[in-house]
Amino acid sequence: MTKRVYNFYPGPATLPLPVLEKARDEFLDFMGTGISVVEISHRTKEWQSVMDDATNLVHEMMKLPTEYKILWLMGGASTQFYMVPANISVKGKPMEYVDTGTWSTNAIKEAKLYGDVKVVASSKEDNFSFIPKDIRFSEDAAYAHITGNNTIYGTEYHEWPKVPEDVPLVVDMSSNLMDRVIDNTQFGVIYAGAQKNLGPAGVTLVAVREDLLKRIPENIPTMMKWTTHVQKGSMFNTPSVFAIYISKLSLEYLKETGGVPAMEKKNREKAKLLYDTIDNSNGFYKGHARKDSRSLMNVTFTMPSPELEDKCVEEALKRNLVGLKGHRSVGGMRASLYNAMSLDGVKELTKFLTEFREEHQ
Amino acid sequence: MTKRVYNFYPGPATLPLPVLEKARDEFLDFMGTGISVVEISHRTKEWQSVMDDATNLVHEMMKLPTEYKILWLMGGASTQFYMVPANISVKGKPMEYVDTGTWSTNAIKEAKLYGDVKVVASSKEDNFSFIPKDIRFSEDAAYAHITGNNTIYGTEYHEWPKVPEDVPLVVDMSSNLMDRVIDNTQFGVIYAGAQKNLGPAGVTLVAVREDLLKRIPENIPTMMKWTTHVQKGSMFNTPSVFAIYISKLSLEYLKETGGVPAMEKKNREKAKLLYDTIDNSNGFYKGHARKDSRSLMNVTFTMPSPELEDKCVEEALKRNLVGLKGHRSVGGMRASLYNAMSLDGVKELTKFLTEFREEHQ
Repeated sequence: MTKRVYNFYPGPATLPLPVLEKARDEFLDFMGTGISVVEISHRTKEWQSVMDDATNLVHEMMKLPTEYKILWLMGGASTQFYMVPANISVKGKPMEYVDTGTWSTNAIKEAKLYGDVKVVASSKEDNFSFIPKDIRFSEDAAYAHITGNNTIYGTEYHEWPKVPEDVPLVVDMSSNLMDRVIDNTQFGVIYAGAQKNLGPAGVTLVAVREDLLKRIPENIPTMMKWTTHVQKGSMFNTPSVFAIYISKLSLEYLKETGGVPAMEKKNREKAKLLYDTIDNSNGFYKGHARKDSRSLMNVTFTMPSPELEDKCVEEALKRNLVGLKGHRSVGGMRASLYNAMSLDGVKELTKFLTEFREEHQ
Repeated sequence: MTKRVYNFYPGPATLPLPVLEKARDEFLDFMGTGISVVEISHRTKEWQSVMDDATNLVHEMMKLPTEYKILWLMGGASTQFYMVPANISVKGKPMEYVDTGTWSTNAIKEAKLYGDVKVVASSKEDNFSFIPKDIRFSEDAAYAHITGNNTIYGTEYHEWPKVPEDVPLVVDMSSNLMDRVIDNTQFGVIYAGAQKNLGPAGVTLVAVREDLLKRIPENIPTMMKWTTHVQKGSMFNTPSVFAIYISKLSLEYLKETGGVPAMEKKNREKAKLLYDTIDNSNGFYKGHARKDSRSLMNVTFTMPSPELEDKCVEEALKRNLVGLKGHRSVGGMRASLYNAMSLDGVKELTKFLTEFREEHQ
């Protein structure tokens, strides 16, 4: 039997075992073609059916109507950091950002190359431990930009900010795409690197509302224009075939297991288990994020000393609980509980954390 | 037993069976981690070893000294079409291109967004059936750009053009990377989408000579700068993990089977078999490319009528010879004989083409 561990890394991240098994079983012969999916021409009808299925499943799972164009691009969310302003900035209008940590900060940096950027809210002064409340965007903003979930700090939007009419809200949803039922039509643009809640690294999902495509300037490179990829069904050039294929399998699995509503239930249960363990530890485990901003996806916490934290990571490894070391910006521990993390995995983790505390408190 | 066909598609393309089998066998458990390679964190030592091995093998197989920096990027060669001028154009100096078909033409289009472009040679007037001779680049050119092999037209450089001292030669080697022994140090920049001679779609190899990094302007997006990826070992953001992993396995296989010298021998044998079949067909098969420009990688030919061509593609399918339809720009047939195509595959193809001719001539 193949060894499997519980993988709590922040991304690339764990994927559903049935998805991996299916990919392995058909790896040498894709849909009876006698060709591996990593060798298949993107101009075949078999491949086209994968693209179509993946796109349709995104529409269905996220309840995104057809006015949203779904793109499968490359370069990660970091590439969208400059593609967003390159595509939809408007001369003379500020681009307005909320700064909730490293990835927001990086997005802000790139936007500045394209015009005037206003940071309208930030939690920097408190090491990004919370999501600002009562965020106000200007009526003349070209667009408003937020980071839906902050992997490093373990914070997540639970209420989405309101935007003035005609100001599109742009969200980096890399680490909380489809983690719960939300109204995705409140966004003008959603983008997400796949390697957390969707599939493997190598593909980035972009959903863009049709009316925004009119803004895209002529004089930017062809590959940078969302319109290029809309017009060519994400196949202006060869797409990231294998990453899209695995994403499609993951979406099928999501649908089969009850879609986003069932996923939300599981995610809330997983997060509650772990946050309860932290909150009931008499201060042994200390959550980094404020309670009202806690992420369902990344749980960050510290312990009485760095030595204990190192020991905890080490002991966890022996129990096949992997990837628990926190990011250096916060220190301590981080458990990423993305969609594909099972409830069993979190039970094992909380059991271990309780035992570890009993031994060391 | 799994069905396998001979895959002559122009890319994504066939890969060595032992590579695919190895990837399948370790798909659920990568290097004993209990994590699939599509789930592995790029911050693990196991993944770092894959990146290092892949990079070292490129240096070794292509005989590129350490002054060449090897990057594993996303977005395909089409993204390099704008990244090349964004990184190394020089104000006031022309960028000089040779136009040998669709991909060159696309590269030229993107460069024009960054300054003055001169097309110094072209075979457009003859439907790109040859590689121009005696190409002269100016001494004041920012750089010189060529497309090493033209998949659509089936042409390839056999002699590389000379460039004036201090003018770096940039080559798109997507479809002929490592197809034969050449002096790769004559180039300032080499870039190649992986999905023909190296691995699956989703990763682009860029080799850039160190001195050119000094040219890169400050005010372009972080992800567009080659320097970003040099400094971070291609891991400024999450790389295209699976595509790099398969590329690494392919490079290992190339090394084990004799490296580029052995590959060249095989490639010349394959191409000779097929070109001889065309040349000895009494005009039934007619090569598109001029003999002095014939590609080792993509063999393009037409037949007496489109109906016969369709019938030939259809009959070939019954013999498990797949992907032979030519591109609409040339019509007819195209057989792509990339590094991973076996001699047996080409023998089967030529046997079939001979029989088909005997039946229909």
